[in-house]
Amino acid sequence: MEDKLVIGGRELRSRLFIGTGKFSSNEIIPSIVKSAEAQVITVALRRIDFESKDENILNYIPDDCIIMPNTSGARNADEAIRIARLARAAGCGNWIKIEVVSDNRYLMPDNIETIRATEVLAKEGFVVLPYMSPDLMAAKRLKDAGAAAVMPLGAPIGTNRGLRTKELVKILINEIDLPIIVDAGLGKPSEAAEAMELGAGAVLVNTAIATAGDPVKMAKAFSLAVKAGRMAYFSGTGTVKEYAEASSPLTGFLLDK
Amino acid sequence: MEDKLVIGGRELRSRLFIGTGKFSSNEIIPSIVKSAEAQVITVALRRIDFESKDENILNYIPDDCIIMPNTSGARNADEAIRIARLARAAGCGNWIKIEVVSDNRYLMPDNIETIRATEVLAKEGFVVLPYMSPDLMAAKRLKDAGAAAVMPLGAPIGTNRGLRTKELVKILINEIDLPIIVDAGLGKPSEAAEAMELGAGAVLVNTAIATAGDPVKMAKAFSLAVKAGRMAYFSGTGTVKEYAEASSPLTGFLLDK
Amino acid sequence: MEDKLVIGGRELRSRLFIGTGKFSSNEIIPSIVKSAEAQVITVALRRIDFESKDENILNYIPDDCIIMPNTSGARNADEAIRIARLARAAGCGNWIKIEVVSDNRYLMPDNIETIRATEVLAKEGFVVLPYMSPDLMAAKRLKDAGAAAVMPLGAPIGTNRGLRTKELVKILINEIDLPIIVDAGLGKPSEAAEAMELGAGAVLVNTAIATAGDPVKMAKAFSLAVKAGRMAYFSGTGTVKEYAEASSPLTGFLLDK
Amino acid sequence: MEDKLVIGGRELRSRLFIGTGKFSSNEIIPSIVKSAEAQVITVALRRIDFESKDENILNYIPDDCIIMPNTSGARNADEAIRIARLARAAGCGNWIKIEVVSDNRYLMPDNIETIRATEVLAKEGFVVLPYMSPDLMAAKRLKDAGAAAVMPLGAPIGTNRGLRTKELVKILINEIDLPIIVDAGLGKPSEAAEAMELGAGAVLVNTAIATAGDPVKMAKAFSLAVKAGRMAYFSGTGTVKEYAEASSPLTGFLLDK
Repeated sequence: MEDKLVIGGRELRSRLFIGTGKFSSNEIIPSIVKSAEAQVITVALRRIDFESKDENILNYIPDDCIIMPNTSGARNADEAIRIARLARAAGCGNWIKIEVVSDNRYLMPDNIETIRATEVLAKEGFVVLPYMSPDLMAAKRLKDAGAAAVMPLGAPIGTNRGLRTKELVKILINEIDLPIIVDAGLGKPSEAAEAMELGAGAVLVNTAIATAGDPVKMAKAFSLAVKAGRMAYFSGTGTVKEYAEASSPLTGFLLDK
Repeated sequence: MEDKLVIGGRELRSRLFIGTGKFSSNEIIPSIVKSAEAQVITVALRRIDFESKDENILNYIPDDCIIMPNTSGARNADEAIRIARLARAAGCGNWIKIEVVSDNRYLMPDNIETIRATEVLAKEGFVVLPYMSPDLMAAKRLKDAGAAAVMPLGAPIGTNRGLRTKELVKILINEIDLPIIVDAGLGKPSEAAEAMELGAGAVLVNTAIATAGDPVKMAKAFSLAVKAGRMAYFSGTGTVKEYAEASSPLTGFLLDK
Repeated sequence: MEDKLVIGGRELRSRLFIGTGKFSSNEIIPSIVKSAEAQVITVALRRIDFESKDENILNYIPDDCIIMPNTSGARNADEAIRIARLARAAGCGNWIKIEVVSDNRYLMPDNIETIRATEVLAKEGFVVLPYMSPDLMAAKRLKDAGAAAVMPLGAPIGTNRGLRTKELVKILINEIDLPIIVDAGLGKPSEAAEAMELGAGAVLVNTAIATAGDPVKMAKAFSLAVKAGRMAYFSGTGTVKEYAEASSPLTGFLLDK
Repeated sequence: MEDKLVIGGRELRSRLFIGTGKFSSNEIIPSIVKSAEAQVITVALRRIDFESKDENILNYIPDDCIIMPNTSGARNADEAIRIARLARAAGCGNWIKIEVVSDNRYLMPDNIETIRATEVLAKEGFVVLPYMSPDLMAAKRLKDAGAAAVMPLGAPIGTNRGLRTKELVKILINEIDLPIIVDAGLGKPSEAAEAMELGAGAVLVNTAIATAGDPVKMAKAFSLAVKAGRMAYFSGTGTVKEYAEASSPLTGFLLDK
């Protein structure tokens, strides 16, 4: 069976997207990408220094990856739109992860501004992946606005708190006919596996890898967990039962002999 | 780094042990073992029909596996001891998983009888792996009695309910200087990964694989999840935070330009 | 200490709001209200039959209660606004709970339409309590639009699934300077207590009471639980610890004698 | 309906047992007892100074309470038995809470030694309430040994971690025909309510009250929560559903008019 994730017309083998923030240095990024077997890499446009050759984070991303610039720093739709256009003009391609955040404590995304930005950018031919607070009706509007996928948070960004929004993410998975990519909050591979078991199309992980004791190993751990969760989703999990059931019939072993 | 699990003097590469009950037919077992990359396979002695060549489940287990007969059906220590001796006499080797169960509804193991059986069998040279209800003081006694590992349940056997006893299993992991192998109850790969992230030495899975829609694929999913969890444990997970933290510095993107 | 909840200028003693749907008959409602010690009662306007004396649900609500008509059945802001005006014109007072739902499976509220309706109705002098999907930025906009409180769901309405959105509701409690009233999904008194312990201003319960074996007793149970949770919130809960701590010093009892 | 808890032939109105350790001073204890509406109060025998009038904690416990001395400090059955006998000889009555703990980090009880002490003391006419690690087979033996109730822990003592052992406690409630009293670990009223909703006979709380900001108010909060949980248990909770269900029929409100 071919289980490809298709976004913006691209067939992706990897369902683990990664972010590039918070690493101790850019030099570790190629090893992370390789270890994660990641294809889609998000980079904050404001972190790209196009004038410096050494510092330019893009130089550290392998050529066969899809760069997904994000609009981190945008506080409303207009700023997100400007950043997206700058990214494309700078040669970063036409994928854009929209992040619109004006809350300083939890960095919660602004769904309404995100919908507005999605409408504009999808019309301009971008492959738009909006970061969002999980909410069914907002996700429906993002789909209508032309989003290529939706990216609900599992917990506030950078917290490693896990898939705390499971109840709402499950509803998106069941009701929205787009890939659901859980972004932000996943802190451990088991949590990424859980998201995939529910039917998420992919997950995006940054902090959990960047703040791990051994980021390269953790990238590999997430990669395996995502595959495990996806396989389990396809395989179909067994029924959860209230009472025990013996793996073998219980009675009479010794009496029979 | 070599991360080997050593039990009874054997170095194991695989931290996913599997059970052989509940499969639709024995013929699927070789594919399951291969897909799970399992080395240790548990078989209820009472399910072994030594007289029939076709039906003998042992014929379906690859030669390089360790057979771990279990005493399923034993209702007290004496019965478990007899079954263990029968197993060894029948050529099943000297590993034994002790299961002593007299409760018919939840099939909860009897720690006291299990300790007694462990004492006797360890002295007789068995490599004893006792299935237990997670309890620190019982685990200490199992260690003193000569257990090679302890196997606390995650939830009642056959329920697919997950790692419901996490609080108590964590205590065993922290306090008992033996491999802790979570056995029973794990229903999804994410739950196996979680057990490994906590520091479990291995997990044993049977029902979740046997009752999956595609058991061979699910065996593979568990195999990946166990590796993911183990890697994450070694890598060291990042701190869980209350408030959000941006992956990139928040302020001033557009103003700076 | 006076711990009053003030909404729309009214001082409320009771932090348990109740709904009137799903009861076997209207005749049980007075006992439910009394047992719940409820002051605020929500009624779907469409369930009010102003022409029939017997059937009119309003006749079953004690005089000292605040009727909070809701716009159940509205699929967009305009319909909600019309229902609100009808309710006021019919003498139901100026409180209005806005429900805008166009999703038929999970009945998830539409935050954007809800914000629009809130803006219009607050300007018209209504005391507006919007039912919402928990989302920080939507709650900020509801506050800016003039909402008197916000009512995030704990789980989809009618499911008794509990406070599944805790992560997001906590953020509203911490960041929004309005009473946060958890509405929908709470299935057991312990879940209502938990919401109150987090700092919710009130909870609204309907299905859990109406579908209980003994609704009058369950109403009382919720009433006690809400008080318990509120008291605990004010009292301040003790620290959660990783390791045990004896209630009394551990060492030397018998040796000392 | 009379819903009395009967233990050792005594009819109890209150299902909230309290402990007396960790309070800032003994002088607060009468207010705590009153606020908690507690009848059964546990005191570590070693904290009782029979020679000092002022310091004697027993002087602070109202006359109509049942003193339940505990064997805190005992590291094995023999020590627990000696402490129990000392307590009775000193006039503390014939109730005894057995605590046998030799683990210094999590203070986990020793079920095997506890069963031994229970056997001896029950035969001597004590009303024995053993503190235990939740385990079905150990609970069965405690019942056979003559325990008047069993007291499984919710989490390690003093941690305020909540009902982390729910899976195992539920099994005790379903299978053991004795009052199940959840002791240790409950940190918030909602957690006490949850234990009662499951069918626990009572809960014992100490640390959560003693370490609260306002212990007297917190005692009251726990008292209400325990009543709420018990009422909900008797009332019967409604079904938990996967999908939403409107409190009122969804269609056609405005169209009908």
